[in-house]
Amino acid sequence: MLVRLGALQFGMFKLTSGKISPYYIDLRIVPSFPSVFKRICDLYVKLLEEEVGLDSFDRIAGIPTAGIPFASIAAFLLDKPLLYVRKEERVHGRERRIEGVVKPGDKVVVLDDLITTGKSILSAVRVLRGEGVVVEDAVVLIDRMEGGSEKLGEDGVKLHSVASILDIAETLSHSGVITDEQYKAIVRQVKGTIRS
Amino acid sequence: MLVRLGALQFGMFKLTSGKISPYYIDLRIVPSFPSVFKRICDLYVKLLEEEVGLDSFDRIAGIPTAGIPFASIAAFLLDKPLLYVRKEERVHGRERRIEGVVKPGDKVVVLDDLITTGKSILSAVRVLRGEGVVVEDAVVLIDRMEGGSEKLGEDGVKLHSVASILDIAETLSHSGVITDEQYKAIVRQVKGTIRS
Repeated sequence: MLVRLGALQFGMFKLTSGKISPYYIDLRIVPSFPSVFKRICDLYVKLLEEEVGLDSFDRIAGIPTAGIPFASIAAFLLDKPLLYVRKEERVHGRERRIEGVVKPGDKVVVLDDLITTGKSILSAVRVLRGEGVVVEDAVVLIDRMEGGSEKLGEDGVKLHSVASILDIAETLSHSGVITDEQYKAIVRQVKGTIRS
Repeated sequence: MLVRLGALQFGMFKLTSGKISPYYIDLRIVPSFPSVFKRICDLYVKLLEEEVGLDSFDRIAGIPTAGIPFASIAAFLLDKPLLYVRKEERVHGRERRIEGVVKPGDKVVVLDDLITTGKSILSAVRVLRGEGVVVEDAVVLIDRMEGGSEKLGEDGVKLHSVASILDIAETLSHSGVITDEQYKAIVRQVKGTIRS
């Protein structure tokens, strides 16, 4: 689905960080395709219901901007309050990092589109915990498997992902959408990160 | 509803611009109250269906960050593609101002939470038109009536709002939620803007 939209591409990509990656994901185009958007929102809802558990959280915190459309629909469908936590470098003027209502003791699940190293999610978790909020779970659509899950674990946050880039690459390799070489490049990328 | 949440407050407020206002609106807390959020999303949907017309637009463009939760739900419920247009001063690194898919000739309706002078909406309209997109309508929940509607009109964009601050103030004054003095201060604020 994502490959068909161009949201997931294989080749050689230079990331903003300067790093080279054998694939590229941009989930920000997903909401432009209503039927795919709906299916992906359903996957988030299922993950929240079945893996996190609806009793495990009172509120959903989305990470702007890419995480907000998914977090909005998930909150809407599950009847849970939504808030969002801005990235530190994006706070202008008198803005707060947290927009929306939270109270000390509330259990909040953080929702984003992707996780790579886990830096943005952990930064949101720290801001929330600074307000006395309990954060034990984070959900994403795709885990890029570059150490994010481990980093979150060290801080007591369990990562739930709909799929990892390795799961996706394996499926695409079996069905012939990507070549064996492309698949191996992704395995190397993931292993390289875990080792380093 | 908004007064009960604290999303709409009356008193003397210094806005970020330095201007003094007899009221304060922060719709960013609305998605934290699921039942109010749902009712407000229904109002947007009704406005898009009945005043704009579902055949008048192919896509919905939300304005980050406050407009995105409302735009996401409206797009989801109406089965329309969603995109968003970042404010100019908020574009970092390699980011584009438009996130999501648009093609020349597409008809796009711009959706935000509020309109004051119309500056943010018009800036989004210009970026979209720069891509060959047709923009003839914009929708907001509340029109602060500080010249935004007129500014949009000059650029060929029709503003549709669920309510104006004057409508709201009138209702609240009739039902005794605000004093006569508070109501008059809002009338003066709006008239002062229209005159200047």
